[in-house]
Amino acid sequence: MQKPYVLGVDIGGTNTVFGVVDVRGQILEQGSIKTANHATVEEYLASLTPDLTKMIANMGGVEMFKGIGVGAPNGNFYSGCIEDAPNMGWAKGKVIPFAAMVEEKTGIPCALTNDANAAAIGEMTYGAAKGMKNFIMITLGTGVGSGIVVNGELVYGHDGFAGELGHVRVRNHNGRLCGCGARGCLEAYASATGVALTAIEYLETRAEESLLRDLDISRINSKDVYEAAVKGDKLALEIFDFTGKILGEAFANFIAFSSPEAIILFGGLTKAGNFILRPIAEAMDANVLSIFRGKTKLLFSQLRESDAAVLGASALAWELK
Amino acid sequence: MQKPYVLGVDIGGTNTVFGVVDVRGQILEQGSIKTANHATVEEYLASLTPDLTKMIANMGGVEMFKGIGVGAPNGNFYSGCIEDAPNMGWAKGKVIPFAAMVEEKTGIPCALTNDANAAAIGEMTYGAAKGMKNFIMITLGTGVGSGIVVNGELVYGHDGFAGELGHVRVRNHNGRLCGCGARGCLEAYASATGVALTAIEYLETRAEESLLRDLDISRINSKDVYEAAVKGDKLALEIFDFTGKILGEAFANFIAFSSPEAIILFGGLTKAGNFILRPIAEAMDANVLSIFRGKTKLLFSQLRESDAAVLGASALAWELK
Repeated sequence: MQKPYVLGVDIGGTNTVFGVVDVRGQILEQGSIKTANHATVEEYLASLTPDLTKMIANMGGVEMFKGIGVGAPNGNFYSGCIEDAPNMGWAKGKVIPFAAMVEEKTGIPCALTNDANAAAIGEMTYGAAKGMKNFIMITLGTGVGSGIVVNGELVYGHDGFAGELGHVRVRNHNGRLCGCGARGCLEAYASATGVALTAIEYLETRAEESLLRDLDISRINSKDVYEAAVKGDKLALEIFDFTGKILGEAFANFIAFSSPEAIILFGGLTKAGNFILRPIAEAMDANVLSIFRGKTKLLFSQLRESDAAVLGASALAWELK
Repeated sequence: MQKPYVLGVDIGGTNTVFGVVDVRGQILEQGSIKTANHATVEEYLASLTPDLTKMIANMGGVEMFKGIGVGAPNGNFYSGCIEDAPNMGWAKGKVIPFAAMVEEKTGIPCALTNDANAAAIGEMTYGAAKGMKNFIMITLGTGVGSGIVVNGELVYGHDGFAGELGHVRVRNHNGRLCGCGARGCLEAYASATGVALTAIEYLETRAEESLLRDLDISRINSKDVYEAAVKGDKLALEIFDFTGKILGEAFANFIAFSSPEAIILFGGLTKAGNFILRPIAEAMDANVLSIFRGKTKLLFSQLRESDAAVLGASALAWELK
């Protein structure tokens, strides 16, 4: 008999969310704990596993679960380890065999990958990529992440870390400094942080009127830019044009690599809707090699933002052998 | 019983070469015809198939052959068609069901792909990528081609045309004009043609002495640059440094995509050996995201240049179901 449930655990920098999911992608039970309030992984698990075992018992016990899927920063699918996740105290500078530890504590097989890969599997299992064998998931949040699917399988590469499209170089060595230490990465421009940096740059180097000038420049974020754009603010619209153009140019290169059926966008920046989608589509179309033109769909995720993290992580568990 | 032979057919712009290959990658019989001296595909096949059927008979007949693999410009693996190959008169502006035609004429199953993909399969079957599940083949010839392998399978994308890394944009819109009509493509810099263009640019805009100044500038090719480099000519060495740097920067981006175990170089430019390999390796290392640093090997093809085209095409036939 097919086991009816999976557990999804998404480890974010601030919160860890988890839930029980059925084959149709319905979240039946859900919970969360703080990720950061723990000095060691043992302490973190001491906080997480009682909640998981309670949920498992509520749903009829271990034998009802196909597996547990975990999405974690720097999560390596091959090894099941979280490998040096600098933003989480208990995982910084360490290689933690997280999947094996969860498996031991719960008695349920566990698979682990990074959050963007989990999002891609979630989209393929429950969302906009259902039935697709070749697509690219791009997450536009604080950073830019990606999950690439080729021939129906996640691309992990030889070491488990493939799909770091946020760190493709899109500008030269005089480009913007990225969190990774390099200059000119896509993430330095196309993340929520990148949009804020573009706003600051525009406000400081240009003279036009803008609603954004009423705000404290040091605290401007991508939501402020969106709200100004909604009111027709030209500078705000230009900020999205610039961001979208960089994304679309990068997407043209990604298409030359894996010729995906769709590029699917997820994350905070997608709330900007057409303000960001139109310039992406235009730049993608203008830059893509002619044999690919008009072939790759540009879509928004079909998963609700509040559910996506748990769904994505849970979807990985269906793939367990 | 495993059938002991395959036939490989490589359709180049000038010549078509073909041969019988065994499981160990030995070419047992070999032949060639002109590709271009034919007005239609029917005429071309009327010239090719008698040679093939003779070879097949020599080796014991149709039942000794697992299949025929064809490498062709704009060859689509999914459809078995050559789709608008502008450099071959009989295939220009047409969609030719080439694999089906060969199958009908010979009675042997036929698969088709483009030449760079065939090179990748050849390398995986007989050469430097034996046993690798994730690698990228880059062909540096008149153009720049690529074949990408992920999870042990060629990346064809949703339409059969994935892996056009020669047309990834590496310079902005003021970059060099590429044969594809766009500006700044990798191919415009890193092909043999690109090296010649760099030589012309350097000679015209700079004042240094160089052995290359003794040559007719309009006829300089990458071999001339290599020969000058061997003699220690500084300008020639700088031309390879520039070319290698652009390639290495591009490779850093490719690694962020699929995290390959190796990037394998093939084609005329690889004759420049360390003159090109060293600057590639340096730029790759300087630009790659830290989690990938030092992990991806940079290798030259292990197939003899004279054999590689036939071997690559033939290898595709072993994959036939």
